[in-house]
Amino acid sequence: MAKPATKLVIITEKLLLKKIAKIIEKSGATGFTAVDAIGQGSRNVRSTGHPSTSDNHTNMKIEVLTDTREMAMQIADEVADKFFADYSGIAYLTNAEVLSSYKFCGPDGC
Amino acid sequence: MAKPATKLVIITEKLLLKKIAKIIEKSGATGFTAVDAIGQGSRNVRSTGHPSTSDNHTNMKIEVLTDTREMAMQIADEVADKFFADYSGIAYLTNAEVLSSYKFCGPDGC
Amino acid sequence: MAKPATKLVIITEKLLLKKIAKIIEKSGATGFTAVDAIGQGSRNVRSTGHPSTSDNHTNMKIEVLTDTREMAMQIADEVADKFFADYSGIAYLTNAEVLSSYKFCGPDGC
Repeated sequence: MAKPATKLVIITEKLLLKKIAKIIEKSGATGFTAVDAIGQGSRNVRSTGHPSTSDNHTNMKIEVLTDTREMAMQIADEVADKFFADYSGIAYLTNAEVLSSYKFCGPDGC
Repeated sequence: MAKPATKLVIITEKLLLKKIAKIIEKSGATGFTAVDAIGQGSRNVRSTGHPSTSDNHTNMKIEVLTDTREMAMQIADEVADKFFADYSGIAYLTNAEVLSSYKFCGPDGC
Repeated sequence: MAKPATKLVIITEKLLLKKIAKIIEKSGATGFTAVDAIGQGSRNVRSTGHPSTSDNHTNMKIEVLTDTREMAMQIADEVADKFFADYSGIAYLTNAEVLSSYKFCGPDGC
């Protein structure tokens, strides 16, 4: 019953969440999960001018499970093109196997 | 020293955490980690009737490292059977290698 | 454009974050992400003497993407050596592919 999937992780500034959610939705992916995060990167200074190491959870880690690697890369490319010149961020892929889902597969099944 | 393990991730509604913790404990897994999450899925409406996109962290992402794939699938099957007809949720697997652990292996070693 | 990387995950008590951040920085890794977490492990009692199952988010899940597996294992070894005798914690690896990054690769590129 396990179904191979690609997991895309985008870690970036929290203020971008709604815009990234729209890109994900437009891609055809059926959902995402986001958690508050703090972090320190090579830039050290965020777009707001504040240090990125403060404990204020102004980053988000956004995860998307996609059926295909192509869909994940398309989302990542659009996010990077639109935002990563001006905001700190990273996008990476891992492999996953979806076992059971009503969110990912939708109400009409997989 | 690395020890292959299966990582099970369950993302579902926060109110289920205690019940899922009992299923995990019963399975023989030695621990879990949970983080608050927000998300949007294909159902769009949660069991509470509120939209799932609100920024109120009523989802949780629960992670369990298990020695065997079978143990992970058993936990996922029980969670899905009990809850995913009534609550939004998803379960997926990834591969991991445990390096050092006092939580996962227990006080008596691995 | 995808670049193979190793993802190190350390889940441990929140009060260790600053010390672990220094170990990560010293290793040459260019950044990390941390999220608040709750959890239950085989020890059941944390270093503070409080049960680890309380919903107070005193754990952290720290993630580091490294170019090499060796760098990830070196960070994990140092963290385990310094802290895991006295504090609950776990370290594990997964494979990842970095797609786009300004944090991970630094302002000078990858």
